[in-house]
Amino acid sequence: MSNPPLPAEYDALLREPNACVIGTVMSDGSPHTVATWYLWEDGRALVNMDAGRARLEWMRKDPRVSLTAIMDDWSQHISLRGRVTEFVGGEQGMDDIDRIARHYTGRPYPHRDRGRVSAWIEILSWHAWGF
Amino acid sequence: MSNPPLPAEYDALLREPNACVIGTVMSDGSPHTVATWYLWEDGRALVNMDAGRARLEWMRKDPRVSLTAIMDDWSQHISLRGRVTEFVGGEQGMDDIDRIARHYTGRPYPHRDRGRVSAWIEILSWHAWGF
Repeated sequence: MSNPPLPAEYDALLREPNACVIGTVMSDGSPHTVATWYLWEDGRALVNMDAGRARLEWMRKDPRVSLTAIMDDWSQHISLRGRVTEFVGGEQGMDDIDRIARHYTGRPYPHRDRGRVSAWIEILSWHAWGF
Repeated sequence: MSNPPLPAEYDALLREPNACVIGTVMSDGSPHTVATWYLWEDGRALVNMDAGRARLEWMRKDPRVSLTAIMDDWSQHISLRGRVTEFVGGEQGMDDIDRIARHYTGRPYPHRDRGRVSAWIEILSWHAWGF
């Protein structure tokens, strides 16, 4: 894997609303993966979760994460390893999920009944396949 | 998450050549994700790697893995947690990558110059989103 920053070509691709999977480590040290929306901004990734997610708890305990973004025809994909440097809840957490939902669906996030928490991910290394 | 077996509907979906990301735990305990081909057979997942992959080393050390398969329009996805119960190299490893490549591309795997190792993944729990 290489160190950031990413070449402009990959940076631009990551700004698209790609399919993405986030990998975290559960409390027992086992890997956990789930599909996630994300935003790529200034070389960092922003993800956002329901405030009640167990994942949030184990990410606070071990902030190391891995992301794999899969481009359109998924013969191209970029993996990013990093760590969460900041969790943000409250109104900002809700604003962020609206911003992310607009990026993917063109509309604000439809659910307002539960709190949302953002996690900013600083990238430590990356690798691109199929380019 | 629920325990296997998966309902017939999800079982059938997993047999399709879906985009998939595998999550493993590196030697330092940090999560690692990468896109992967897989085959879903009799409630187990088969993946196959270049015999020289570092990932293979840390999977032998900690066989716990997580898979997230993303269906066609990726509003549906299924995550599987499990463990590698068997590694298979040699001719069988090469036969397996041919079988997997045919599933995804309709053709045998084009590269014959490097050894291939299969990993059979037994599923311990699963979760489906968007259904």
